Amino acid sequence: MIDDLQKFLNECRGIVEAELETLVPAAEVVPSSLNKAIRWSLFAGGKRFRPAVLMAVGIAFGANVGVLKRSAAAIEMIHTFSLIHDDLPAMDNDDYRRGREACHKKFGEATAILAGDALQTLAFKALAEDEQLSPDVRVKIISLVASASGTPHGMVAGQQLDLDAEGRQISVKELEMIHSRKTGALITVSALVGAIIANASTLDIGLVEQYASKLGLLFQITDDLLDVTESSITLGKTAGKDANAQKATYPAKFGIEKARQMASAVRDEAAICADQLNADPTLLKALVNRIFDRRS
Amino acid sequence: MIDDLQKFLNECRGIVEAELETLVPAAEVVPSSLNKAIRWSLFAGGKRFRPAVLMAVGIAFGANVGVLKRSAAAIEMIHTFSLIHDDLPAMDNDDYRRGREACHKKFGEATAILAGDALQTLAFKALAEDEQLSPDVRVKIISLVASASGTPHGMVAGQQLDLDAEGRQISVKELEMIHSRKTGALITVSALVGAIIANASTLDIGLVEQYASKLGLLFQITDDLLDVTESSITLGKTAGKDANAQKATYPAKFGIEKARQMASAVRDEAAICADQLNADPTLLKALVNRIFDRRS
Repeated sequence: MIDDLQKFLNECRGIVEAELETLVPAAEVVPSSLNKAIRWSLFAGGKRFRPAVLMAVGIAFGANVGVLKRSAAAIEMIHTFSLIHDDLPAMDNDDYRRGREACHKKFGEATAILAGDALQTLAFKALAEDEQLSPDVRVKIISLVASASGTPHGMVAGQQLDLDAEGRQISVKELEMIHSRKTGALITVSALVGAIIANASTLDIGLVEQYASKLGLLFQITDDLLDVTESSITLGKTAGKDANAQKATYPAKFGIEKARQMASAVRDEAAICADQLNADPTLLKALVNRIFDRRS
Repeated sequence: MIDDLQKFLNECRGIVEAELETLVPAAEVVPSSLNKAIRWSLFAGGKRFRPAVLMAVGIAFGANVGVLKRSAAAIEMIHTFSLIHDDLPAMDNDDYRRGREACHKKFGEATAILAGDALQTLAFKALAEDEQLSPDVRVKIISLVASASGTPHGMVAGQQLDLDAEGRQISVKELEMIHSRKTGALITVSALVGAIIANASTLDIGLVEQYASKLGLLFQITDDLLDVTESSITLGKTAGKDANAQKATYPAKFGIEKARQMASAVRDEAAICADQLNADPTLLKALVNRIFDRRS
């Protein structure tokens, strides 16, 4: 299954990157400085984890990859916009991302701000123009993706809460609130969109949400652990920066050993959720194990 | 008619602000720092010009205000996001906007970046969830608004071109290219959305686009002139900043007198366009005259 999962992830990455290529202006299109900056951050060899979640759920419920790829690419654009803005000097001030210079280091702050803005715009445009889906499904997806990206329950709100929490002790509840918004919301919506496009039942969509919230939590705990235990070269971004910025993380709150135990428990819960779905759980459980075992 | 126009503009402002109130989180909702920042910039007494254009065109073609207000509010959110980001130190570095401190001066740069991001997200969410319109019309509007906001032909692209042009001589063609994107695209799309919601014919939509492109150009030339001729207090933003930043403007390119003559000619062209529409042109022509005569 590990081989099958790797094959799936590779295929998924190829399909999403080909789709992204159709959705963003070429580097030579005016304003080329902006379009180059967008492409620099978008085509930097990201893991394409959120697209993989969307596709894995959609495929589990019987959808074909072709009908899923546009939404998967749009969510990856939202994710990349958030990385570009989070790395800015006024935010997390990180010079290094996806194994290369951060967007603002390469193109300047103004262009990086605009590149993030334009990626969000391009994502919603791509969703609105996805002619494989009915307008009814498209507006549902846009509404969900927008809620998961914005305020008060989405990714941007999570980033604000994270900034607000820097340098002070926070409760477990606050930690969960930050991460469910900052990371969890977009992972969960990826799974939901896959299920909706595959026309899953309302009951199954509820179960998918549970599965995805566990997967998102697992992703965050392992992300926090990697920041402590791995090198910058392995991660492709600055290691140890959470501790340096006194960020709210699971290892900081519970210690490394306890955080590892939590990850293990969440992995088991996510697998149980996958088994409850009225769908083939194989790929979804393999994805959980891959996140648990990840090294970058 | 001037009195009627003023009455229309006042009513329009009231309706749009009430609608905006329903679309953004309350100040006390967590994360309150972010939601306060959004409200600070959104409810700062803006002229609500783009919503007025949308509503004037929609009403001219027989739509009622109720069915137009959501789209008008969404476009105002996009406009406000652009103001917040344009004012950032890395961009135009302006401390003063709509008669009060710019968002980043009041709430810090990180929160201002996130407030702009969240406003864009909220705008697309509002459009997707506008149940007065069919899903088919909603996706059409989202696609148009996204194109007018992003790259390569929208507002964000225009801001990049404007930054790229700072401090160097540019051609008339480049000046037009900058402004048609930076200011014109969102004004034009406002008019188009009004016409689409009012179910105007394809022919009329084409004519509306011509009218709006003249109106947008008139708005930009008069905006550039005001920057030279009026005080910061009158404008509610820093006067003279275009010249200081060696920005590409019509008075800088042609001189004040020639720019005034151009404004006068464009006003006449816009009025001719309004007369060609299969609609009541009264309000649309009054709007043109108001922009021509504006003092802020």
